[in-house]
Amino acid sequence: MAEANTKAEHFVGLDLGGTKILAGVFDHSLECIGSAKLSTKSQRGVDKVVERIARCIQDAVDEADLSMKQVAGVGLGAPGAVDYDSGTVIFAPNLEGWKDVPLKKDLEKLLGVPVFVENDCNIAALGVYVAELKSKPRSMIGIFIGTGIGAGLIIDGELFSGFSHTAGEIGHMVVEVSGPKCGCGNKGCFEALASRTAIFQQIKAGVKDGQKTMLTEMLGDSLEDLRSGDLRKAIRRGDKFVDRVVESAAEYIGIATANIVNVLNPEVVVLGGGVIEALADEMMGVIVETAADYAMPGTMKGVEIVASKLGDNAGITGGAVLAKRATK
Amino acid sequence: MAEANTKAEHFVGLDLGGTKILAGVFDHSLECIGSAKLSTKSQRGVDKVVERIARCIQDAVDEADLSMKQVAGVGLGAPGAVDYDSGTVIFAPNLEGWKDVPLKKDLEKLLGVPVFVENDCNIAALGVYVAELKSKPRSMIGIFIGTGIGAGLIIDGELFSGFSHTAGEIGHMVVEVSGPKCGCGNKGCFEALASRTAIFQQIKAGVKDGQKTMLTEMLGDSLEDLRSGDLRKAIRRGDKFVDRVVESAAEYIGIATANIVNVLNPEVVVLGGGVIEALADEMMGVIVETAADYAMPGTMKGVEIVASKLGDNAGITGGAVLAKRATK
Repeated sequence: MAEANTKAEHFVGLDLGGTKILAGVFDHSLECIGSAKLSTKSQRGVDKVVERIARCIQDAVDEADLSMKQVAGVGLGAPGAVDYDSGTVIFAPNLEGWKDVPLKKDLEKLLGVPVFVENDCNIAALGVYVAELKSKPRSMIGIFIGTGIGAGLIIDGELFSGFSHTAGEIGHMVVEVSGPKCGCGNKGCFEALASRTAIFQQIKAGVKDGQKTMLTEMLGDSLEDLRSGDLRKAIRRGDKFVDRVVESAAEYIGIATANIVNVLNPEVVVLGGGVIEALADEMMGVIVETAADYAMPGTMKGVEIVASKLGDNAGITGGAVLAKRATK
Repeated sequence: MAEANTKAEHFVGLDLGGTKILAGVFDHSLECIGSAKLSTKSQRGVDKVVERIARCIQDAVDEADLSMKQVAGVGLGAPGAVDYDSGTVIFAPNLEGWKDVPLKKDLEKLLGVPVFVENDCNIAALGVYVAELKSKPRSMIGIFIGTGIGAGLIIDGELFSGFSHTAGEIGHMVVEVSGPKCGCGNKGCFEALASRTAIFQQIKAGVKDGQKTMLTEMLGDSLEDLRSGDLRKAIRRGDKFVDRVVESAAEYIGIATANIVNVLNPEVVVLGGGVIEALADEMMGVIVETAADYAMPGTMKGVEIVASKLGDNAGITGGAVLAKRATK
């Protein structure tokens, strides 16, 4: 035991988000034995965020009663376009000033261990695939619904990231040409209809229009600190307005799922991300039913649509999987 | 040469459509050396159509001055859901009574050579990939716009048909939830907005509403014999109404292409089928421009969007490719 602990046989997964940084230390059987969390503070600049990432990793390693010498590698998911080979974050819309950041190189200098950088949805899909589904299905699509919406594709047992490593931008699949404006400039993107941002906007617009909801009693009229969990509480207390907004989002998630099943016919579709983590009981029934309505006859046969149980840990778990595979 | 001709080193590709059957004989370099065409006449029943398929193949082989003994295999594309392993057509919506037809078995009995059955869009994509793109890109999506709309996916150099062999049903990807009714029962499917059927419906509805178009001068008020080529003629003579309808369809094709590029980020998107064959000059500019507008920044970088030059021959070429690969 003492001998094993001096070997570099642990893996760190790190999930870099727009608001928080999450790190987890995993053993070779992919069990999480320590974790740490820091806020991102991207307004302080790229270099400061890179330092915070390094610190978060060191904190998690210390939390697991290990030293960096016992870490074989770090796998990191970044919220944007990533060049895997060079480990560069090409562009991350939710991180201030992140353009062509050589994250792999910078972190390897700070930490002294190999670092592997991937897109955050790719890495979360990999985590779900390996740790939750035990790599059993041949193909799997992970759809992650949070502030934005993204996907990771597993095809023939491997992460598929496309020609220029940008596959999975399902949030910008148009499902309603004449729909609401999306942050990307187009109209009717999936993300503009069913992300947490879209759901919150619809609720705030409804309140402005005089809709009655318990949320204003819970949080005040401005709904400033609204979180997905508040929606769940309101629905469970019988709030019809919130229920309607969440159901509509679930229908769009069902339609987008059917689109994916029609085009790719994967063995499993896994839904994850903060919105699903908070509202799985409220949304999954509608999602599965709507997907079945919109999929072509036959295409849904035997296809599973499930909510991930990894929740917020999908990213760090996938990071550890990536590090384990890459250092083998 | 005489010796080579007695060997079974030719391949037959067959494209089974709702209205016509097309067969082509190919040499080992995938050059077409003889072809034949028959109408399908699916109203005569499944057995008669199977006989017609066999006859069309024999006609093409005879046309190429060969005998069946010189054919190594037949690759066949059927318009519907196919079980490749058993060679059964599970369901073909445009062929009367086609449900669980053991096409491979029946044809092998009639022809005495190995027969391989695939979905028609898969086979057309394979034909374009191998014969037109020389298998160079790692990933390619072939989108075929005709009476309906379907796609074939090449991923990592191989045909990808998904978990239950139904991948590529891009025609039933919803792009406008509140859009026109589709034959499948849902609303706003890509096929209900941009297929030949959809374009013709829009033109006929416009004429009923009093829209002026040269098409009524060319074909009479009922527009009974309307073909895609007539649209091209009308547009080239300055018909604004037809131009508008075709441009709108091209925009939807562009949006669907962007959806696919966002999700799969393939190296090449090839557009084919009767509508593109007849109207490539009129549509491709709008398609490429709209796709670029709707794709996420970066995802379209280096991705090619091109019209297939194989036209109606994509299916028979792909059939020959399939037979060649399967008999190797």
